[in-house]
Amino acid sequence: MRFKKVTIVGIGLIGGSLGLALRKKFPGIEVIGLSRSLQKIARAKKKGLIDWGSRDPRKAFSNADLIVIATPVSLIFQWIREAEKWAKPGTVVTDVGSTKGEIVRRAEREKFRNIRFVGSHPMAGSHESGMEFAEKDLFKGSLVFVAKTRQTDSGALKAMIVFWKKICGKVIVLDPVKHDRIVADISHIPHALASLLVQNVPSRSLPFASSGFLDTTRVAQGDPRLWTDIFRTNKTSILRGLSIYRKALDRFAAGLRSRQEGILYRFLAKSSKIRRDWKSF
Amino acid sequence: MRFKKVTIVGIGLIGGSLGLALRKKFPGIEVIGLSRSLQKIARAKKKGLIDWGSRDPRKAFSNADLIVIATPVSLIFQWIREAEKWAKPGTVVTDVGSTKGEIVRRAEREKFRNIRFVGSHPMAGSHESGMEFAEKDLFKGSLVFVAKTRQTDSGALKAMIVFWKKICGKVIVLDPVKHDRIVADISHIPHALASLLVQNVPSRSLPFASSGFLDTTRVAQGDPRLWTDIFRTNKTSILRGLSIYRKALDRFAAGLRSRQEGILYRFLAKSSKIRRDWKSF
Repeated sequence: MRFKKVTIVGIGLIGGSLGLALRKKFPGIEVIGLSRSLQKIARAKKKGLIDWGSRDPRKAFSNADLIVIATPVSLIFQWIREAEKWAKPGTVVTDVGSTKGEIVRRAEREKFRNIRFVGSHPMAGSHESGMEFAEKDLFKGSLVFVAKTRQTDSGALKAMIVFWKKICGKVIVLDPVKHDRIVADISHIPHALASLLVQNVPSRSLPFASSGFLDTTRVAQGDPRLWTDIFRTNKTSILRGLSIYRKALDRFAAGLRSRQEGILYRFLAKSSKIRRDWKSF
Repeated sequence: MRFKKVTIVGIGLIGGSLGLALRKKFPGIEVIGLSRSLQKIARAKKKGLIDWGSRDPRKAFSNADLIVIATPVSLIFQWIREAEKWAKPGTVVTDVGSTKGEIVRRAEREKFRNIRFVGSHPMAGSHESGMEFAEKDLFKGSLVFVAKTRQTDSGALKAMIVFWKKICGKVIVLDPVKHDRIVADISHIPHALASLLVQNVPSRSLPFASSGFLDTTRVAQGDPRLWTDIFRTNKTSILRGLSIYRKALDRFAAGLRSRQEGILYRFLAKSSKIRRDWKSF
């Protein structure tokens, strides 16, 4: 591991799990936590998620050779700016936000001279949030996206690839705009559809739900603040996907209304096959 | 347990699990399997799902005091008719199909003189099918609906309530039309939405799916033949629910397009709360 001192901003489910993984798997690394709350810092230290923490970005950032911003999406950019102010020249800065297009675009527009920013998105987490749910193996075997554009510093990119390979399973390097399309398809649109389902089931039927319904709607439990940020910053891809979905829904309803069993069977067989044949990247 | 000889028609996931549960929990009961396939009968006997089996409805039915039809929905009615032909007078006949309106209506129109039919729907199962997946505890703690109309024989109804209470957890007695509305809401509509999602994710995005997507779409793996029957026999309730869903989807897309973060937050917070607060009947 190239990085010896890692500062994590925001000690929630993701930041806390990352700190724990780093401390357990790489005993030579110093993990510093940056949080606005002294209470959280104390709790994180007690739980072994960080070595030490601070509310002061100057102190937490000037000690780091890698800064990982693990805050909600809407706060990431201001923390990149803080890192630029206080970090040592050449410090690699990354984030773990669920959308990458907007943040990379804003970071590149800013033309930082001090830090080297590379956006990341480890596909790990759950519908829970907060350091209480932090786990050493949250990232184990999971996929991580690392955003690359023509402006990305190649040394920092390589270092991030090596870093994530040690923490997660597979690393996918790709354009941030393409990233946002993919996560709209496989995460944000499903979240919207599950949330819509939960709200539109008549309350008299809801108590009879069983495992199928509960699995289908599990993601809708997610923190609404985090998800508001995600939807706001990936609006275009989500709206495009929802529009395709809506047309397919209309076709399905028309097919069902038409009483043509063959259409219905082929529709169900196609979905069943795609889902059963699904293989991870 | 009032029933001493139970004939199960169709030894798949549900029929097989029921046989296994009866044989393990009530050693005094004789479980007879009726299947068109001698191979299946032999396998079911070897796996301990039945005591003995037959392809001959006369033999299997004349020996029973309870007949449970556990075939796909489209075959239930013809088996009720067979039961009427061969069963002893007063024999209680039930089914375990996922829709109840059509089958109860058809059975009542027929005015059987021999058997006493009561429709059931244990809310147990999985996206798998076949006796290979049979489990003794498949029904344990689950909900079962028993259909009641003005024509339902009260003695047979009581016997079925007692029977299911011993096998499942809770028994809900209700009108078959109301039943079909409830299961449309909490099972059939979610199945349609999950199936639509699976088919409409661009294939380039699908390999990147993680646990959220996989949970949201798990039910779409279900056997397309079984589900074709379910959709065909519960079309009205499903179409009504999908139409409500579609309007909600349009409102959500309009809200997202409008950039009003407050609307988005309230939408997500509402779903998250409903889903987190969910409690079983």
